[in-house]
Amino acid sequence: MSKANANQARSKATTGSYSITVRLHTGTDPAVIGQLATAVSEAGGITTALDIVESRHDRLVVDLTCSAVDGEHAEQLVDALKEVSGVSVHKVSDRTFLLHIGGKIGVEPTVPLRTRDDLSMAYTPGVGRVSLALAEHPEDVSRLTIKGNSVAVVTDGSAVLGLGNIGPGAALPVMEGKAALFKRFADIDAWPICLDTHDTDEIVRAVELIAPGFGGINLEDIAAPQCFEIEARLRESLDIPVFHDDQHGTAIVVLAALTNALRCVGKELPDARVVVAGAGAAGSAIVSLLLAAGAHDIIVWDKEGLLSGDDTDLPPAKLSLAQKTNPRKLTGTLRDGLQDADVFIGVSAGGVLDPEWIEEMAKQQIVFALANPDPEVDIAEASRRAAVVASGRSDYPNQINNVLAFPGVFRGLLDARAKHVTVEMLLRAAYAIAGVVTDEQLNPNYIIPSVFDSGVATAVATAIAGPEEKK
Amino acid sequence: MSKANANQARSKATTGSYSITVRLHTGTDPAVIGQLATAVSEAGGITTALDIVESRHDRLVVDLTCSAVDGEHAEQLVDALKEVSGVSVHKVSDRTFLLHIGGKIGVEPTVPLRTRDDLSMAYTPGVGRVSLALAEHPEDVSRLTIKGNSVAVVTDGSAVLGLGNIGPGAALPVMEGKAALFKRFADIDAWPICLDTHDTDEIVRAVELIAPGFGGINLEDIAAPQCFEIEARLRESLDIPVFHDDQHGTAIVVLAALTNALRCVGKELPDARVVVAGAGAAGSAIVSLLLAAGAHDIIVWDKEGLLSGDDTDLPPAKLSLAQKTNPRKLTGTLRDGLQDADVFIGVSAGGVLDPEWIEEMAKQQIVFALANPDPEVDIAEASRRAAVVASGRSDYPNQINNVLAFPGVFRGLLDARAKHVTVEMLLRAAYAIAGVVTDEQLNPNYIIPSVFDSGVATAVATAIAGPEEKK
Repeated sequence: MSKANANQARSKATTGSYSITVRLHTGTDPAVIGQLATAVSEAGGITTALDIVESRHDRLVVDLTCSAVDGEHAEQLVDALKEVSGVSVHKVSDRTFLLHIGGKIGVEPTVPLRTRDDLSMAYTPGVGRVSLALAEHPEDVSRLTIKGNSVAVVTDGSAVLGLGNIGPGAALPVMEGKAALFKRFADIDAWPICLDTHDTDEIVRAVELIAPGFGGINLEDIAAPQCFEIEARLRESLDIPVFHDDQHGTAIVVLAALTNALRCVGKELPDARVVVAGAGAAGSAIVSLLLAAGAHDIIVWDKEGLLSGDDTDLPPAKLSLAQKTNPRKLTGTLRDGLQDADVFIGVSAGGVLDPEWIEEMAKQQIVFALANPDPEVDIAEASRRAAVVASGRSDYPNQINNVLAFPGVFRGLLDARAKHVTVEMLLRAAYAIAGVVTDEQLNPNYIIPSVFDSGVATAVATAIAGPEEKK
Repeated sequence: MSKANANQARSKATTGSYSITVRLHTGTDPAVIGQLATAVSEAGGITTALDIVESRHDRLVVDLTCSAVDGEHAEQLVDALKEVSGVSVHKVSDRTFLLHIGGKIGVEPTVPLRTRDDLSMAYTPGVGRVSLALAEHPEDVSRLTIKGNSVAVVTDGSAVLGLGNIGPGAALPVMEGKAALFKRFADIDAWPICLDTHDTDEIVRAVELIAPGFGGINLEDIAAPQCFEIEARLRESLDIPVFHDDQHGTAIVVLAALTNALRCVGKELPDARVVVAGAGAAGSAIVSLLLAAGAHDIIVWDKEGLLSGDDTDLPPAKLSLAQKTNPRKLTGTLRDGLQDADVFIGVSAGGVLDPEWIEEMAKQQIVFALANPDPEVDIAEASRRAAVVASGRSDYPNQINNVLAFPGVFRGLLDARAKHVTVEMLLRAAYAIAGVVTDEQLNPNYIIPSVFDSGVATAVATAIAGPEEKK
């Protein structure tokens, strides 16, 4: 990617997520409107809407909506507007916050409730016969209730996005967003369950207790290492699939992207040296899935350095990971691990990868810098040195976005009435996503389909159901 | 009510809740369609739809939908159809079961998710700013998430309708129906939570754990006496309102109906002798609310006979109830309690009240026979002897239906961001429902508004918010 392209990409970072609406009082000089738009533009913002709310003989009231890079930039835009002659800023509203008022999901009846006759079927007395039938034939619950299409999005708010432990209430907007995406991309009815505890036993038990009403459990933003035990125990005790999206959703999309990245550079996974930075939920699951996909040489780096199975001082989860990886028993720094590596996959923290180190990797480097909001390495810098670069950001090519996996995964699980998620399913899902990108489409800037590609969820769902189900 | 009226009411019992669709193969004689409708009618059914699905030179395929009283009657209707010459029955479908396929509620996003810009506000990265703001200002969670409008409909499936302990999965259709009614009547987003336990401690803890995502808890169909402790403990520990509908919803509607029934007969609650049959969840709550409303002379009857505070052999919940009631320390049978009573309120079991005993009550008897599906006394028999009769049935006048209370109650609680439900709120809700029936409308066959009266939920919500909130 050229420097010009990188700057162009950077300019796209003024996304709608930091959009503000500024109410201004201005004089009636017709030139003032143009001056406002110019002020925003010169300060690096983009005006997306401009409404004259009120026009009087002595003043105008104007709502100007513009996109900023971040909060600091938004303040700069407001300051720029204040400096326009004759303009006073009355109020600044944040479009993202306005969107969240009242929440982002709702419950809708899917049956008519207009007449007494309707009520007598959907509720008493008719519903009693359905309940009685289900008491006698529990196997029909999924067919005759929402259980067949519903997923609980469960969190304890302990590891929300890059924000850490913000608790269950503050996590709710994220879980609602996830539920909205479930509907949008796979027609699944998901409901957020935000648990008021960080205790492993309590989380496990709470999910077990609410399970009868759901067809699947999507664990979300639960901190490692607790998330490993919680998932393992729930998989053991429940007869509905349990999927920790931060682990397996991420792993699926990473394997999909890596499969296509390797296609781009003409390498094979079994021969590739892979360095994974970050031994948390995502890192652990990525390692497991890459091993299942045939990788032989993976080294994991975390704050202890390169993890080696010989280092018995490691915490249990990391030791277990180390024992499955690092066949050459390397120790040292991330830079040490990267010597002659083919692939870097970062799910750690912003800025841990010096761009210069990329040049010490084997030629045709693949760099996935997935930390959010700040990647392990500046994406523009990485793009100048590596053959293929992916990130978690929507303002660069090759966004690794779990939306590509979880809707289709649960669609497939629910359709198949699956009781469990298997590694084979995860592999098939990854290859299905990779397969959506045709040979003609494939290039270093397009290794992964767009989240809006409507074929992805269907392909993943079909893959989850298994080869015997393929049409 | 005259005998003719009673028969007329009885004929209405062929409700849609037992509606079947019969697929028939017939000859092509044009008369056959008329013969089918006649056969249904003569067997006491009502044909509600008749579709020619396929017409060939040698036969017709017909879908005939008809309403029956119950399962046995439905079979009689099918038999009657089979006897029509040249007709063979191909398949019988139950309309209520068909309606339940796939469940009765769904989750819908309430924000646009069409573009990348939309996603960046509703989900990452924009949602991160909202979550961060909520971590700093937890008091805003209700405003910026679904919590402000959502209710958990919680059950353990231990006392579902009249079906008893059928478990959480079989209870799900009822909870879904309830959630659908919440939306239909009060625009509330309710989600069913069916708990896989009957242990009081586990139920309490599970509800505490899921509470952060909900603005209110509606306990539903949980058996007495566990429901009393569960509700009391949750009210103590949670900062959102907890309402056990089987108790308080029923109590509100009973007090509303009783208020108007007493208006009809010109009696006052403080002077009335009231007998309540059934010391379960509903009976206990009715007693408490009637006492709060000024009743002085209430006697509770249950399988132990008339409950008296002197009887220390009673289980704790019943002893507590007995000690609040029965000022004349009566003992004996239900019939003994009914001597000179003004009001009978049955929330017990079918057929426990002999119609003759009604004549031994004080003149201008009020009889509420609310057991479902079979009331304490035949409603037609009671109507011949009492001044005012109410039941839980939709096929007679004066249906005591919780739908009149719970949607408006929670609407009011959510709008007021109430943390607790008070007895004063319940009283105000009851009087609000009673007040919807004007003096002009009031008569012994119309003491309670229709469930479809759109003014009820609003009146209840306003009343819950309190007198200071009234417009």
